Amino acid sequence: MNTFGNIFRLTSYGESHGIAIGGVIDGCPSGIEVDMAFVQEELNRRRPGQSKITTPRKESDEVEFLSGIYEGMTTGTPIGFVIRNNNQHSSDYDNLKDIYRPSHADYTYAQKYGVRDHRGGGRSSARETIARCVGGALAKLALKQLGIDVTGYTSQVGHIKLENDYSLYDLSQIESTPVRCPDMDKANEMITLIEDVKSKGDTIGGVITCVIKGTPVGLGEPVFGKLHAALGFAMLGINAVKGFEYGDGFDVNHRGSEINDVFYNDNGKINTRTNHSGGVQGGISNGQDIYFRVAFKPVATVLMLQDTVDTKGEDTNLKARGRHDACVLPRAVPIVEAMAAMTILDYYLLSKLNKALI
Amino acid sequence: MNTFGNIFRLTSYGESHGIAIGGVIDGCPSGIEVDMAFVQEELNRRRPGQSKITTPRKESDEVEFLSGIYEGMTTGTPIGFVIRNNNQHSSDYDNLKDIYRPSHADYTYAQKYGVRDHRGGGRSSARETIARCVGGALAKLALKQLGIDVTGYTSQVGHIKLENDYSLYDLSQIESTPVRCPDMDKANEMITLIEDVKSKGDTIGGVITCVIKGTPVGLGEPVFGKLHAALGFAMLGINAVKGFEYGDGFDVNHRGSEINDVFYNDNGKINTRTNHSGGVQGGISNGQDIYFRVAFKPVATVLMLQDTVDTKGEDTNLKARGRHDACVLPRAVPIVEAMAAMTILDYYLLSKLNKALI
Amino acid sequence: MNTFGNIFRLTSYGESHGIAIGGVIDGCPSGIEVDMAFVQEELNRRRPGQSKITTPRKESDEVEFLSGIYEGMTTGTPIGFVIRNNNQHSSDYDNLKDIYRPSHADYTYAQKYGVRDHRGGGRSSARETIARCVGGALAKLALKQLGIDVTGYTSQVGHIKLENDYSLYDLSQIESTPVRCPDMDKANEMITLIEDVKSKGDTIGGVITCVIKGTPVGLGEPVFGKLHAALGFAMLGINAVKGFEYGDGFDVNHRGSEINDVFYNDNGKINTRTNHSGGVQGGISNGQDIYFRVAFKPVATVLMLQDTVDTKGEDTNLKARGRHDACVLPRAVPIVEAMAAMTILDYYLLSKLNKALI
Amino acid sequence: MNTFGNIFRLTSYGESHGIAIGGVIDGCPSGIEVDMAFVQEELNRRRPGQSKITTPRKESDEVEFLSGIYEGMTTGTPIGFVIRNNNQHSSDYDNLKDIYRPSHADYTYAQKYGVRDHRGGGRSSARETIARCVGGALAKLALKQLGIDVTGYTSQVGHIKLENDYSLYDLSQIESTPVRCPDMDKANEMITLIEDVKSKGDTIGGVITCVIKGTPVGLGEPVFGKLHAALGFAMLGINAVKGFEYGDGFDVNHRGSEINDVFYNDNGKINTRTNHSGGVQGGISNGQDIYFRVAFKPVATVLMLQDTVDTKGEDTNLKARGRHDACVLPRAVPIVEAMAAMTILDYYLLSKLNKALI
Repeated sequence: MNTFGNIFRLTSYGESHGIAIGGVIDGCPSGIEVDMAFVQEELNRRRPGQSKITTPRKESDEVEFLSGIYEGMTTGTPIGFVIRNNNQHSSDYDNLKDIYRPSHADYTYAQKYGVRDHRGGGRSSARETIARCVGGALAKLALKQLGIDVTGYTSQVGHIKLENDYSLYDLSQIESTPVRCPDMDKANEMITLIEDVKSKGDTIGGVITCVIKGTPVGLGEPVFGKLHAALGFAMLGINAVKGFEYGDGFDVNHRGSEINDVFYNDNGKINTRTNHSGGVQGGISNGQDIYFRVAFKPVATVLMLQDTVDTKGEDTNLKARGRHDACVLPRAVPIVEAMAAMTILDYYLLSKLNKALI
Repeated sequence: MNTFGNIFRLTSYGESHGIAIGGVIDGCPSGIEVDMAFVQEELNRRRPGQSKITTPRKESDEVEFLSGIYEGMTTGTPIGFVIRNNNQHSSDYDNLKDIYRPSHADYTYAQKYGVRDHRGGGRSSARETIARCVGGALAKLALKQLGIDVTGYTSQVGHIKLENDYSLYDLSQIESTPVRCPDMDKANEMITLIEDVKSKGDTIGGVITCVIKGTPVGLGEPVFGKLHAALGFAMLGINAVKGFEYGDGFDVNHRGSEINDVFYNDNGKINTRTNHSGGVQGGISNGQDIYFRVAFKPVATVLMLQDTVDTKGEDTNLKARGRHDACVLPRAVPIVEAMAAMTILDYYLLSKLNKALI
Repeated sequence: MNTFGNIFRLTSYGESHGIAIGGVIDGCPSGIEVDMAFVQEELNRRRPGQSKITTPRKESDEVEFLSGIYEGMTTGTPIGFVIRNNNQHSSDYDNLKDIYRPSHADYTYAQKYGVRDHRGGGRSSARETIARCVGGALAKLALKQLGIDVTGYTSQVGHIKLENDYSLYDLSQIESTPVRCPDMDKANEMITLIEDVKSKGDTIGGVITCVIKGTPVGLGEPVFGKLHAALGFAMLGINAVKGFEYGDGFDVNHRGSEINDVFYNDNGKINTRTNHSGGVQGGISNGQDIYFRVAFKPVATVLMLQDTVDTKGEDTNLKARGRHDACVLPRAVPIVEAMAAMTILDYYLLSKLNKALI
Repeated sequence: MNTFGNIFRLTSYGESHGIAIGGVIDGCPSGIEVDMAFVQEELNRRRPGQSKITTPRKESDEVEFLSGIYEGMTTGTPIGFVIRNNNQHSSDYDNLKDIYRPSHADYTYAQKYGVRDHRGGGRSSARETIARCVGGALAKLALKQLGIDVTGYTSQVGHIKLENDYSLYDLSQIESTPVRCPDMDKANEMITLIEDVKSKGDTIGGVITCVIKGTPVGLGEPVFGKLHAALGFAMLGINAVKGFEYGDGFDVNHRGSEINDVFYNDNGKINTRTNHSGGVQGGISNGQDIYFRVAFKPVATVLMLQDTVDTKGEDTNLKARGRHDACVLPRAVPIVEAMAAMTILDYYLLSKLNKALI
């Protein structure tokens, strides 16, 4: 299942240490102006080696579009693209050929398919998410034409957590720190923590918050295509994600009377006084800001000796080599945005059909 | 989008106060023995009026199967079924015809479709989940043949929360309290809390935990059909759900070295010493128990005066009438199980194809 | 695979001699006025016993809608419906329990599923097409709002064949003969032939032609969802259909220069001088009439002694009993129209997305 | 809709004069040995310039696989591939930028999307079918492991038509003539006809017959996924195809008693004495040979002066330039086989689920 979406559909392919990562975007409406510099910039935000707190691997990650764009404009035909792998150190993984790394996908892939490309995690590598960033960049360009904006940021690393609601931060500051957090003090604390964890060869997780502004009323396809279910599905499909909540989420110790979002007449427009619903009611967007939180576990690759088994099931141990992130959160922000943007565009397109005959 | 699943597919239909709720299950393998008493019992677990802490509405919710079962056995053809609505008090909703209830789907449905059946929430009513319980019952019967068991329970109501991990409870005790919680002391506290909230005309939310035992290695279809993403999508499609987490979930303040699930040779079988992964690695089941938590908001229908707007956008207020749950958690347990069972069966079937030619 | 369509989707269920035939229509836009008398009339056109040349079986085939329609209007939610079986003579089939009838689906169903409802062909019975006529009736009502009209007629029975193109007949005359043929002389010949074949206990096939007028330019989703491919798929899914052709079809002995449909300026509108393309170019409708032909084999049930095998594979013979059509063409006309109407509506909806952002 | 298939899914991209044609195959089971020489040979069979009766365009059409194959074996992950365009003479099409060619897809694409890559037909070019031949080659390799063989041949060009049934020819001779026809006399007549038509700048159509041997009983997913409907959909999705028939097809002047395929005990195996059904009964394969016929219209590009309109709708005329086929049938044989092979493999995989729990 390497296709994501109903109408705007991304099909992704590629292994970490294979020839290339790539994809096909089908169902993209015609007439979207493709700002190539913007697309590449989105890939750069995900790229390793972009700052001192990410892995030092240098991957250029340049996208080549192969079809579906003519004279700078989408034509409505499928958009094929490819990103060549060209800085892969496959030999870093030679010692893993016959070993299952703990909390990686080595064992499960091997059992599922009977065949496995062990180099760099193969298909299970987060390198695959490059294809999503390309799809997300296209979706963002389409959403921009619709006045919809998707912004993610790191809201927690380990125990360091933003105290406030997204609405109290200046989200335009996110890119000004390598950790992608709008609170500069907390950002510095997070960076210090990540560097400390990294120096020990260990890893750490956290939470990304995402806010979508400008969504019209009516996106979401109940009962099984609720908008938040689609967003949750998108987020849970990102490597290392362990949880998703929107609106009040797991904060359940409130009474219905406290958290109902009361409607009022806001100068002729229907508005809500609060937004505990996170912009979605009954699975359909209500025109308020959509916001949600995504939990990431620590990366499984730690540069420490760990017990494990080999492919014959015998006890052994391993110590990972190579260039890895101690914390993926900063680089995961553009991936969260990409998946959110594709979801919102997909559901925007679906919503055009609801009243198509009225 | 009223169809759920890839291979084992449930299509659901019906409004709360329409003629019936029903569905069609397509892609169900042949040869499953259909224990009709079990199916009805699953519906009874979801039924209103089953205990003092649920709504006193009496709905018989008897399922009639219309096709796809012959001489007590599934035949592989689509299974149509219907549950007639016959205790609907539509007049309870007359005063809601021109009003949008806060935090309900009234406003969003009206905007999305331009047409709305206002009675009892129409399609957005949780009464629709009856169809899912039928689908879930069939899936459970199939999973039983495979040795897979799905069990949900209420693990939090408001501030009352189970302290321990699922493995420390006797899950066979869940049905012995009306709140469906395996810790009898906590169960009583929850019941007291629900009764208190109810007496005030208010409502309260909570968390349901679900455990799946016996899943073979290999279920899950990366990269976009990760098993936990499918489970999350299923859960987030249930009415009032606000969050989903599996394994350690949002508990992110741990190092990678602490939470990696180390493999070992367990008398010839590959096993893990811990299960922070929640039974899923790289989106594929690893043979350990799968467990996850689902957050439910308080029901939006409170029997108190609330501000709102009418369908013309003018300020007004309303006080709900009728027979409602103060806390849906106990009745939501079988729905969580049903959605989980359908998901697991669906992915079990998908997994049969991975090595189909080896 | 009992769901048909991409956006406007019919899921069908039910066996010939089970409790009911029914279905769910999902993805139907809101705001379509449902003329119930029209829907029932469409079922009546398919119903057995409507004339002397069809089977004398009396089936009332009354449809009950269960959801998705409120105050005479589609609401955008799924439309469940059921048609009870109530004149089934299952005992007519007692002798078939252990026999595989030649050129029926008995053997293939038994092998495929291991389980089989032998009564009346079970799921493979053409009685299932009632559900399609309901879906088709809804689609026709939607298409009427768009000015699109779908008309089928019997153009060949055995060797009796209409000589002319559809454009030379008065299609409003089709319903005036029981054989549904617009050429009254040929219609009478066909009736005589069918009565003759019937008197011998034999059966006969033929061809149905279908014409779709008023389709806008732009329907069809290349490369795999070409409009004619979708129509062909729809037609080949009807019981007893053996072939599909559109435009010039199998009449291949012409040069490109002869059959290219030359464009011209028709008072400011782009038009073609001929229509060998059958209204579809490159898989997309070009605004001309769409027309196609569908071949039906003779019904497999002949009231004559035939050799065959039993379910153990032993040679035996059988002579069918019961009330059967000698020629299904007249009753298949509404089914062809129904499948065509659902296809066109589905592709109309898809086409709304092509330029959704321009 | 650029994805074909349910389980084994090909997503195709690319325009005739863009950078590349390519695709992604998802859902391919692991463990298929990929004979690269075979794959390239399949592309060569489709390639222009292979003989005197095809277009003299020289396109090398070399496929590069980018993922999903490791050490010569499919791994179960998506298989990305690309074929660079490198002999495109886009300037041949400069005069077509503002003109709609008769019976091409120029006009319909322009209307549908508002944007159009006019060079060489863009997406509507048959060059896109390279991607299908890659998918088909993989499918053939899988089918070979299952003992299933797919063979197509040219059975009619213009008025020159094979008189006999496929069973009377030596199908191993097909590749010995450039026209891919197993009857050498007829093949020579066809070649003469094609050369004559070509010398006049005109084009001609015909019929391809395809035979599938070795299919097990049980492939096909009624009621909407009948095996022949899937095959018909596949064939009608090929450029220039106007009709599809299987078994007796449009040859409808027979009685049921004549064409029923009587079963008999063939040394312990259930067999049929005839095969009018074309190997499919009730939409499910019955183990007999599957055979069908596909009608192709003449190529629309004729090298003669034709009337038409420009993109403003004004009358004009054009005379095509460039290197074109006078008859596509020989080069379409591998495309027919490719689409058939992918369909059969897809339905083979689906059939594994029918009795998955027995």
